[in-house]
Parts: sequence; structure tokens; C-alpha cells
Amino acid sequence: MAVPSPGYSLTLRVETPATITATSELAAAVGKAGGSITALDVTESGHEHMVVDVSCNTTDAAHGDLIRDALNALEGVTVRNVSDRTFLMHLGGKLEVVPKVALRNRDDLSRAYTPGVARVCLAIAENPAAARNLTIKRNTIAVVTDGSAVLGLGNIGPAAALPVMEGKAALFKQFANVDAWPVCLDTQDTEEIIMIVKALAPVYGGVNLEDIAAPRCFEIEARLREELDIPVFHDDQHGTAIVTLAALTNALLVVGKQIDQIKIVVSGVGAAGNAIIQLLAARGAKNIIACGRNGAISRDDVSADAHRNWLAENTNPENFKGSLHEAIAGADVFIGVSAPNILEEEHIASMNTDAIVFAMANPDPEVDPIAAGRHAAIVATGRSDFPNQINNVLAFPGFFRGLLDAGVSDITDSMLLAAADAISARVSQDELNPGFIIPSVFDPHVASDVAEAVAHAAAKNK
Amino acid sequence: MAVPSPGYSLTLRVETPATITATSELAAAVGKAGGSITALDVTESGHEHMVVDVSCNTTDAAHGDLIRDALNALEGVTVRNVSDRTFLMHLGGKLEVVPKVALRNRDDLSRAYTPGVARVCLAIAENPAAARNLTIKRNTIAVVTDGSAVLGLGNIGPAAALPVMEGKAALFKQFANVDAWPVCLDTQDTEEIIMIVKALAPVYGGVNLEDIAAPRCFEIEARLREELDIPVFHDDQHGTAIVTLAALTNALLVVGKQIDQIKIVVSGVGAAGNAIIQLLAARGAKNIIACGRNGAISRDDVSADAHRNWLAENTNPENFKGSLHEAIAGADVFIGVSAPNILEEEHIASMNTDAIVFAMANPDPEVDPIAAGRHAAIVATGRSDFPNQINNVLAFPGFFRGLLDAGVSDITDSMLLAAADAISARVSQDELNPGFIIPSVFDPHVASDVAEAVAHAAAKNK
Repeated sequence: MAVPSPGYSLTLRVETPATITATSELAAAVGKAGGSITALDVTESGHEHMVVDVSCNTTDAAHGDLIRDALNALEGVTVRNVSDRTFLMHLGGKLEVVPKVALRNRDDLSRAYTPGVARVCLAIAENPAAARNLTIKRNTIAVVTDGSAVLGLGNIGPAAALPVMEGKAALFKQFANVDAWPVCLDTQDTEEIIMIVKALAPVYGGVNLEDIAAPRCFEIEARLREELDIPVFHDDQHGTAIVTLAALTNALLVVGKQIDQIKIVVSGVGAAGNAIIQLLAARGAKNIIACGRNGAISRDDVSADAHRNWLAENTNPENFKGSLHEAIAGADVFIGVSAPNILEEEHIASMNTDAIVFAMANPDPEVDPIAAGRHAAIVATGRSDFPNQINNVLAFPGFFRGLLDAGVSDITDSMLLAAADAISARVSQDELNPGFIIPSVFDPHVASDVAEAVAHAAAKNK
Repeated sequence: MAVPSPGYSLTLRVETPATITATSELAAAVGKAGGSITALDVTESGHEHMVVDVSCNTTDAAHGDLIRDALNALEGVTVRNVSDRTFLMHLGGKLEVVPKVALRNRDDLSRAYTPGVARVCLAIAENPAAARNLTIKRNTIAVVTDGSAVLGLGNIGPAAALPVMEGKAALFKQFANVDAWPVCLDTQDTEEIIMIVKALAPVYGGVNLEDIAAPRCFEIEARLREELDIPVFHDDQHGTAIVTLAALTNALLVVGKQIDQIKIVVSGVGAAGNAIIQLLAARGAKNIIACGRNGAISRDDVSADAHRNWLAENTNPENFKGSLHEAIAGADVFIGVSAPNILEEEHIASMNTDAIVFAMANPDPEVDPIAAGRHAAIVATGRSDFPNQINNVLAFPGFFRGLLDAGVSDITDSMLLAAADAISARVSQDELNPGFIIPSVFDPHVASDVAEAVAHAAAKNK
């Protein structure tokens, strides 16, 4: 299933004989090796030789080696250098901290810094609520991780998690003008993480928890929500749940089914699975079967884990017992936030007519989306190279924009539901079809619509 | 001593009769009330009335009220609104977090974020040193405070300290292109602060401690220096010491004295006083008398405080006992980092000929600088409205630029001394005089000279 991706794009600097067919031979060799050419730039040219920068997308590092070897094998061709465009983009990091005020002269300095700043400090000391107007707190959130569950890479630690958190912060700014700062903690102790985030809070108007392993993430989120007066959001839970509900809302419109009358099977009971199930239930879903590694969770599953117990008591109304493969038979909806390739085509074929399949494991889905499409009415994944990408970028920037604009201190289900509705509403009746149930991440109106919906829901709560 | 300052500048929106002398009457009233006019802008004009924005510098809030009342007292004049330009500048805070990479399309997204970013994460997981090249760590420092000793305001807490830390971060970027981020901690427990800063370290290439009360600041700095592999600098100590030594070096050139042959009295044995004394000793000063609230610290002062003991053992070689007023008699240099107005003109008159007085308490110096100037050869303060401003902005931006450029993990005395020399060398022999012993904070070469000197000293250490 691997296809060349711009996330794995290389530029190979190649010396080649100066013949009329030289560049087309290079392009042909890359194509034959499975690479996807994106640019050919001649950087030097002489009577006998020329130097060409060949940029192409590949599938992975081994594929890059293969393409380099294929070019070197051409007569007279030498690959001088291979540079990875993703690594080039990351040199020096992806964020900078920029003053919003000019500091050109002594007058500027005496207002932004001493002595003028002292009066601003005193105003906040006298009235702590003034911090929201007179400091960056108003527009700034912390993106907090302990590096324990980063992307699909697992427990790679806080330093290795930083490129993801920087990327997330860049997306917050780009899509919703939220100033987000990476906080990568060199501890994986629940109590220490809670203590640290509480101590950091004076600077921030919100906290986005990210890539923290379950079940630790539940405790951290719950405690911080209770103990802080700024909103705390775990994107792996609630961001995923919002976008999943948005996509499902539109998918059900396409197939003409009602959420309270369908059977939904969710594979994966970690952070995302739990939050998805809770949000679908809040929206009215009655028949959800949650499947962990040992199959369906039923009334008899008693566990030390409070979240597992909630699932045992509040899902699976018919108390079905059996494997995921058995549970999925006759289901209207499959939602996967678990592991790659755990379902075969036959399992999708066993679902109800007009089945909806969201196979969101990354980078490889629970089922081959092409095979699933032969039986299901609608297929969505987390990937950008298939239709219907379920991507949290649709939710988190606008969600926090709304929280900050409304000065929210606690996140409620009504805000999560409103955000999902704002996203699904971005797909008009005219656009809606089985291959377009969710807007593009580059839809310029999504973030502002989500922000407005969240702020509106917050106002109604008051 | 209060003079109108741009740190206390107001804009008063005034409705006035439309006469030919209206604006000059407004200006005269402001001047008579002691305000310093900076602008008069007519914003509306009619046949009978006009509206004028009067901008002026004042000394404090009460003075602003006085000026407003003076304008309202003019016939036919009404002050509609008074806005404080310092507060206007602080609305929404002074920093933003900006992506350094474009995120215009899906290809950008797949390199800066998933899936491409995963390879960058793995590269760091495999080789932690790669974080310095592939993340913001390379150019980013934390500005850490607990809000316990903010400017001269005391223990105002972390939220009220944020405007200062934002200003500091803005100066780091403006003067040395260092990305600095405010960390205002809602705890004043030494062990908690140490634990938190260590946990935050993966994101940062250095730590600038700021406005943390003594003696806690010494323990925090010492422990973090030992336990972290990135440089830790307490600006209130070392920044002040660097700039003081730079100014003193040039002052001694002016009066033709040698540092190892003079008597130096330092008033104040907190963070700044300790660091100044240690750096002057490292440069060769032999006869330093440190004075606390109870007078000179001598061999007999045994204390629970290790820093106080160090002073008792390593300063005051003649074991002088007595008050600050007694200690200063015959001294060549007075350095004050203590409290306002603790010396009278007669005390300065009691010093040696060609005395040097650095009265750096903020905002009001240890002695009236005009009175001091009647007896001392050279007077310097921390204020911008007198000659010879001793301002840490001369040191900290370039110092950290040098640390980051050289990839320094530990700060040494040789780096502090090199930074002081780079600053003093910015004043050429032709420029040097009793009123110009230290360069302007807007000298565009100071930061780069300091950075180069620090990096050079670091290279020699290796």
C-alpha cells in the first residue's frame, strides 16, 4: 500500500553526461524505481557534463537508497549528494518567538520594559484577572507531552517528541492565530506532570495535552480540569472524537441512517476510542460495542481501570461476547483507532448494507481501504492519500480559538458537539457524497466556524 | 528627583473651543502642571470646537490626575478620555509564536507534520544530540521566574511577573535573535523549581533565571548548573556583575587607578552584590568591603548562609568593623545594589579623591546622583535619565547568543570576564570620559561583540 509521499521527498544532486536525453533518462530511471518526480533543476551545465537536482517523492528510506542506486547505475551518472527535504525543513526548528511591539528607541524600551512595565505588573498583582488582557495569556496555550505515545512511534521520550509539538504549534498559529508553545516534559510520572502543568499555568490561557499514553492521560486530564481555572483538552481524545463525529454525521446523511438506530463497533479502547464512544453516546448513539485486544467489552468485564468499567457498564446493551471479527457482523459502522491490518475484506463484507468504515490507525489502517470499498458504502482513513481523511487539524486550532475568545475555563460536551457540527456543516448538501464526507484541512472557513460554534456553546452554558 | 518619563506617558483626548490659541493654551497648561508634551494631534475640527489628543510624559499616576485636572480647569475645555500608552502597548501581551516554515499546502504539511515528521523524531530518538540541529532547542532559552523578587516590586507572584519576562524575551530576540520563552512558575519551593526546570529542559538550549529572591536563587542556580547539561545563568547576579565590571574597568581608566590597588565598598549582599564581588575578585580586586543592613561583613560574621560565610572569609582583608557610612570613608569605589537614599552628600565627600560611585538601586539610587557628582569623579546609576546607565541589556542578549552559538553546557568565570571586556571595549579611547564609561544599550555592535567574546572564551576552555 505504500505510495510515494512528499513526507519522504529527496533531492538527489546528480552529475550526468551533457546529452540531449540526459534529464529524460534520469526521470525515467526514477520512475522505474517507483519514485515520483516533483522537479528537475539543472544547476550547472558544461559542454561535457551537467549537474541536475532531481527531486522526487519516495515511500521510505530504503526506497530512497533504491532510487540513488538506480541513478548511479546509469552510464556516466554519479549521485553526488542526497538531501532529505523533510530534514532540511527541520533544521533549526520550526518556531520562533517574536516581539509584537517595536523596541526601536529608549521610549519604546521604557514602556515595554523598565520602568513602565512595573505599573503593568502592579495592575496584575492588584487584579489577577487583568493578566488576560495585559499579557500573552490571552492568546497562548501550552502543548504538553511526556513523549510516551508519540504518533505511532510509541514511547520515544520528550526530546524526540519535540518536532511533533513544534509542528502542532505551527498549525495552531497558521490555522487559528493561537500562540502555542511546546512543553516536552522529561518525566512520565503522573503526579509530577500534574504538578508541573499547574505550576506553568500563569502564562497560559489553555492546555493541549498531546501524545501521552493511556491510561495515564485520563488521570492527568481529569485532575488538571479539576484543579486549573483554564481549559484542558487532550487532543488524542477529544480532537479525534470531534472529527470522527463530524465525519460520521455526514456519512449517516449519505446512507440515510439515524445515529440512535445503528450498531457501531469501535476497535481500540485507548485515549481516542474512549473519547469517541463518549461523544457518540452524548450525540445519541445507543448500540456501541467497544473492542479491545481480547474482543468485545461486556457487562462481565470488571477491571481496575475506571474507564474500562465505564465502557462495560455503558456500552454493548445486548451484552454481546466475542471477538472483533464476530462483533462486526451486521454492524452499520466500524470505527478503528487501534492497529494496522486487523480486518480482512470478508469482515467488511459481513457488515450491514450501506456500511460505514472509518479505519484510522496510522500510518496503516485497520483494513485495506480499497478492499473495504468493495463492500462498504463509505470508507474513511487518517491518511492524506485516500479520500475522506479524518484529521484532527480540522478541530484543534478552531476549538482553542473559541475557548480563548470566550475566556472559557471548563470544556463541556456541548462545546465538543458544537465543534463537530460546525465541521460537518462545512460540507454542503451539494458537495456531500461517499468520497467527500469531511472538509479539506485547507478549507479556510473551518477554524473560524469551529471557533464561533465553541464560543456560542460557551455563552449558552453561562 | 522624579522627572517625567516615557514609561508614564498619557494621551488625553480633549475637547476645546476652536480658537487660534487653543492648542498653545493646552500645551502651556500641561507644562505648568509639570508634564512634558510629546505630541499634539487635532483629531476633529469644527467651527466652534475641536478635539485634540495631547500626549505627554508624567512622573506617576497622581501626576497624570493633576494634568487632567489642569486641562479640565481651562475655560471651555473637557478631557474626554485619558489613555495610558504603556498599558495600550501591553494589550494582548508582547510576544507571539510564529512558524518559521510555510504550511501552505498538503506537501508542506506532510513534511512539517505527519507523516514526514516521524522520521525526524526517530532520528532524535536514535541520536539525542541531533535535537540541537533539528528542533528549536538550538536557539531557544527559558526565562524562568517564581515572581518572588520582581524589579523593585518584591514578591508579586508569577502572573504579575509575566510582563517583565515577556519584555525580557522581546529584548533577547531584538538584540541577539535568541528565541526566549517566559516560564512563570506558580511555586516558590526550591526543590519544586529545580525539579520543574529540569523537566522542561528538553526544549531549551539554556536557562535564564530571573527575579528569584536570594538566597533561594543561589541554591537553584547551583543545583541546575550541576544537574543540567545546558547553561544556567541568573541575570540578576551575573548580568549585573558583567555590566558593573565593564563600567568599572572604563571608570578606572578615566581616573587612572588599578583594580588591585583600590578599596571598593559594595552595599547590598543579595543576588547582585554577591555576584559583583565574586567577579571583581576574579578580575583581581583585593580590598572589597561588603555591607549588608548591619554594616560591613567581617571575619567574625558566622551565618547559616554559605554565601554570607564566603564573603566573611574572602573579603574585607583588614577585617574592618562598622557601618556603611564608616566603611565608605576613604574608599575609591562605591557600588550600590541595595536601597534608595541610604547615603548623603557628606558620605560621598568622605571618599578618596577621584571617587567612583555606582548607585544602582532602582528606581531611586542609593544617593542623589547630582549631589554625588559634586564630590565623585564619576557617577553611574541604573536610570536612563542620567549619564552612565548600568543596564543588563548590554550583557544578557549577547551572552546567550554566544552560549548557543558555541553549544556551551557550563558557564565559566572566563566567559563572564570576556563579556565584560567586550562591553567596555565598545567605548573607544576617544569617546571615554566621566560621562561616558559604558556604551548605549542601542549600540548595534554590543551584542555581537559579547557573543563573539563568549564563544571565544568557550573555545579556549575546551
